[in-house]
Amino acid sequence: MKRILFLFLLFSAFFVQINAQNIEIYPTNWWVGMKWHNVQLLVKADKEGLNKQEVSIKYPGVSITKVHQLDNSKYLAIDVAIAPTAKAGNVAISFTEGGKTTNVQWPLKPRRKGMGTEFAKGVNSSDFIYFLMPDRFSNGDTSNDKIAGMRDQSLNRDSIYLRHGGDLKGVINHLDYLQSLGVTTLWMTPVLENDMPNRTEHGYAFTNHYKIDPRYGGSEAYKKLSDALHQRGMKLIQDAVYNHVGSYHFTFLDQPTKDWFHQWPTYTGTSFKDQPLFDPYGSKKDAKITTDGWFVPQMPDLNHNNPYVANFLIQHALWCVEEFGVDGWRIDTYIYNDMDFMNRCNKALTDEYPAMTMFGENWVHGVINQSYFVQNNLNIPKKSNLQGSVDFQTLFYGIQPALNEKFGWTEGVTKLYNTLAQDLVYKDATRNVIFLDNHDMTRFFTTVKGDVEKQKMGIEWLLTCRGIPQLYYGTEILMAGESNPDGLVRLDFAGGWQGDKKNAFTGAGLSADEKSVQDLIKKLGTYRLTSSALKTGKLMQYLPDDGLYVYFRYDTNQTVMCVMNTSEKNKTVNFNNYSERTSGFTKATDVLTNNNLGSQFTIAAKRMLVLQLGK
Amino acid sequence: MKRILFLFLLFSAFFVQINAQNIEIYPTNWWVGMKWHNVQLLVKADKEGLNKQEVSIKYPGVSITKVHQLDNSKYLAIDVAIAPTAKAGNVAISFTEGGKTTNVQWPLKPRRKGMGTEFAKGVNSSDFIYFLMPDRFSNGDTSNDKIAGMRDQSLNRDSIYLRHGGDLKGVINHLDYLQSLGVTTLWMTPVLENDMPNRTEHGYAFTNHYKIDPRYGGSEAYKKLSDALHQRGMKLIQDAVYNHVGSYHFTFLDQPTKDWFHQWPTYTGTSFKDQPLFDPYGSKKDAKITTDGWFVPQMPDLNHNNPYVANFLIQHALWCVEEFGVDGWRIDTYIYNDMDFMNRCNKALTDEYPAMTMFGENWVHGVINQSYFVQNNLNIPKKSNLQGSVDFQTLFYGIQPALNEKFGWTEGVTKLYNTLAQDLVYKDATRNVIFLDNHDMTRFFTTVKGDVEKQKMGIEWLLTCRGIPQLYYGTEILMAGESNPDGLVRLDFAGGWQGDKKNAFTGAGLSADEKSVQDLIKKLGTYRLTSSALKTGKLMQYLPDDGLYVYFRYDTNQTVMCVMNTSEKNKTVNFNNYSERTSGFTKATDVLTNNNLGSQFTIAAKRMLVLQLGK
Repeated sequence: MKRILFLFLLFSAFFVQINAQNIEIYPTNWWVGMKWHNVQLLVKADKEGLNKQEVSIKYPGVSITKVHQLDNSKYLAIDVAIAPTAKAGNVAISFTEGGKTTNVQWPLKPRRKGMGTEFAKGVNSSDFIYFLMPDRFSNGDTSNDKIAGMRDQSLNRDSIYLRHGGDLKGVINHLDYLQSLGVTTLWMTPVLENDMPNRTEHGYAFTNHYKIDPRYGGSEAYKKLSDALHQRGMKLIQDAVYNHVGSYHFTFLDQPTKDWFHQWPTYTGTSFKDQPLFDPYGSKKDAKITTDGWFVPQMPDLNHNNPYVANFLIQHALWCVEEFGVDGWRIDTYIYNDMDFMNRCNKALTDEYPAMTMFGENWVHGVINQSYFVQNNLNIPKKSNLQGSVDFQTLFYGIQPALNEKFGWTEGVTKLYNTLAQDLVYKDATRNVIFLDNHDMTRFFTTVKGDVEKQKMGIEWLLTCRGIPQLYYGTEILMAGESNPDGLVRLDFAGGWQGDKKNAFTGAGLSADEKSVQDLIKKLGTYRLTSSALKTGKLMQYLPDDGLYVYFRYDTNQTVMCVMNTSEKNKTVNFNNYSERTSGFTKATDVLTNNNLGSQFTIAAKRMLVLQLGK
Repeated sequence: MKRILFLFLLFSAFFVQINAQNIEIYPTNWWVGMKWHNVQLLVKADKEGLNKQEVSIKYPGVSITKVHQLDNSKYLAIDVAIAPTAKAGNVAISFTEGGKTTNVQWPLKPRRKGMGTEFAKGVNSSDFIYFLMPDRFSNGDTSNDKIAGMRDQSLNRDSIYLRHGGDLKGVINHLDYLQSLGVTTLWMTPVLENDMPNRTEHGYAFTNHYKIDPRYGGSEAYKKLSDALHQRGMKLIQDAVYNHVGSYHFTFLDQPTKDWFHQWPTYTGTSFKDQPLFDPYGSKKDAKITTDGWFVPQMPDLNHNNPYVANFLIQHALWCVEEFGVDGWRIDTYIYNDMDFMNRCNKALTDEYPAMTMFGENWVHGVINQSYFVQNNLNIPKKSNLQGSVDFQTLFYGIQPALNEKFGWTEGVTKLYNTLAQDLVYKDATRNVIFLDNHDMTRFFTTVKGDVEKQKMGIEWLLTCRGIPQLYYGTEILMAGESNPDGLVRLDFAGGWQGDKKNAFTGAGLSADEKSVQDLIKKLGTYRLTSSALKTGKLMQYLPDDGLYVYFRYDTNQTVMCVMNTSEKNKTVNFNNYSERTSGFTKATDVLTNNNLGSQFTIAAKRMLVLQLGK
């Protein structure tokens, strides 16, 4: 094989490119000087017989090490080695059969500058994430609302399931607003092409990994957004989906191998259950259903044990970071992925981008359950290398019951306290992303039954607890909605569309309550920007007492005392009861009002106070 | 010091014993050939000035290595070394001052025979524990109902808090009954002297560690019971209390040191909260309250950091095992004990008795919480060496919601399933003691709201799940009661008193339901005696499906299929859905009825089946 390749390398220079066929190559380009320098190209022709063609590359420092025939003769997988000496340029890849040659240009680009400082910086507890859905946040460019040739030609803001026209330009337009909230980091539902016939608003059904959805402005707009964020010192999180693709993905419509996707005799959905994966008593059957069952019929389940699939996904992840300057990585439906694959994939990212951080959507119930899918302190044979998790536990068994349940031995804020006490299981719990709601869940304002004060308490908790706070768009203006159907929690952001009477950006049309919540976030979010205690300080929590929950964030420079009164009664708080943290201090300055409450004060029922201690 | 001791060793032989004072020595004896051969004697005189007396021992192979003065001059702590060559006999310990000598005989006995085979055998998942309160089970000897000179002179079966007269003879009389249930192991609330003025029925307020309560028949009866059990191949678990003593304990009435007990400026009870002990964010204040706060005002909290206290308790534990032939050790209020002390204490027991097993009462909420107090798979700095726990998690978040809650994503039998899946945190979950109720908790029959079928399901679960099953006396005859006040779950066992019309031993006066539950235990309990699958087999559990929960216990010899239908509907069960465990089998024989249900069958709503598979 090698000798044949060598001969072709000699000959290929003489061939003239003949566009006798359309050949696509994924990844669509690569870079010189990458650690991941052995790239596996997935090559797709528009007709069968690609397997009969001889493939060659003549480019200094770039060579083919192996050509893999796949089940489907329209595809080839080509292993390409890029030497450290290789220079940027267009690599010609030649496909020849019967004297006919097709040359395809495969760009080898110089690397993006500023890795670890300007991009791939990682997202940590010093950050504050704003999470939005680009179709629903703001329409900055009406020219891309419908794209000819795409399957979903809907455009109707009156329907929760049709397209609304939001795009990346709309996000770029409002980065000032995000910064006014203290936000440092943007996370959006996926922006990759979702050329599905319907339900394209959420973005989790990729149809081409190497195209940014043109309805969001395409690759150009995504790069502009990334640059705009980085110019402001902000960060970009990309939403990664490894588990599945959309059923109109080219690899599903025309499958490279028979086992590219998990196959079942009849449609088999995942159980959506995590336990079979770690249960010492679990059955293989249940574990297989969890990982190999499909998420929904419209999203075929990728087989990560197929090495070509694995390479395709890993390389795409690396490609996105380098191409778009991503800083952090959110991984969708983490538990349904193959853990060995995920470990390889995560490692490839951190090998290439050491400062890069990742967190996964582990929608499970139980701290042990959640910790299994991240770096943990468990002595178990199978270990995840994922750094953090979307922290469903501090939501379900934390702030939700803290605010909605009556205080009790195991109820109310005791649950929040107990869930945090269980953090000993995590390698680093500060890497978990804490949140009040998201695109799949009932809006927090609905969870607290429209109680504005509880909404404020939730936000005050969000911005002071350990971990990386994530705010879902609209929570700051009291957007409400049940998650069933999920479209109800994906409504348009006020002011994102021309002519919106209510405008969260300008404040026009906001009710006093909405304004007050938005103001709270602006104050506390921007306070947090310079608060070492809240960003990186330690946490100390005291045993809740009759619904009164007191915790501290502190370091050598600063102590912030957080007092959450979940009871129905006013409570007196005295520094003496928390002397490990209050010793030496005499002042408690309310971060929101600047009032000094002194070392003994009353907190009203159902209120929270965030207090910076002073001498 | 050593020279003085040497001189006294020379002189002491010449002194004649003068009973000028009463001196008590704890432990009251020791044995030759123990690993624990450096014994610290706590010596108590009835008047002050013991510290001025010279202490000497003249006995081959026994020597004093150190005499410790304590704060209270009525006490001394004397370190005694017993050489391997020492022979059994009475060691004379001489106390001399001003020419007056008191000689106290301290027996050094030959060791109990049969360690690890006849006693100190350990209790494991092959066993079935019956747990009873000796005052409430059966009165075998009315002559000891009241003991002259003891503080509690009550005797009134009409009051839940007064003494009822039950005793160890009563237990001995009914070992046939226990064996008829399949029981292998007896655990009783403590039998040590509780010479308290009231509430002496529970036994957790020791007043003298070296006396068995005379109302139970004293040391003689306890030894008889132990012998009777061992003659039947049964085992004895002792209930240990390290955390506290009764306020009439001699060491509290007359305290050896100022810090023998945890002292607080004003009475401070424990918070009864476990989290401060492992919470990475916990305060020292809260942790101190948990361990050093008192259990109740009547039970002073022992200071395990006082080395004399620690030695007193550890030696007493060893003494009990050797003196009474104990097989297993249940440790009361485990979480409030000092963990370093407990680790030393547990290690002393297993060093001396390698087959010995221990489990603790860790009344906490959460598998992580519970696992912290036992040997676990957590990489954390502080590690417990306790083997097992009373398994509150499979009760609170297991069988209770399985039977009482409607099935749901996280509700009903899903909780039981999830709690067991979390077993990965334990080093060995089979060492946990599973149960339905105990002397502090609402009776299971009340928990299931008087539903006999649910009671049966609970018992079927108890005898088939992983771990060591423990039955609380009376559960087999549908005893009911709320735990508040706790006396209501400590009622007399029917038939334990002469003249009882209802008699669980003979069956007289039992209702059909009561009889049917008792019969169920007899059948399943005795089946379990020879079922390798249930005793030591592995567990495999399948994801519950609409309330239908199927699990297997299996080994190479036997497969037992357990089917719990918690739904309101009949369910069809087919071997095909569980082929990892049913493959090769065609028969499912109901262990209770001997009916073969075949490989597909229907289970009625709210029923459980225990099926031995066959070919």
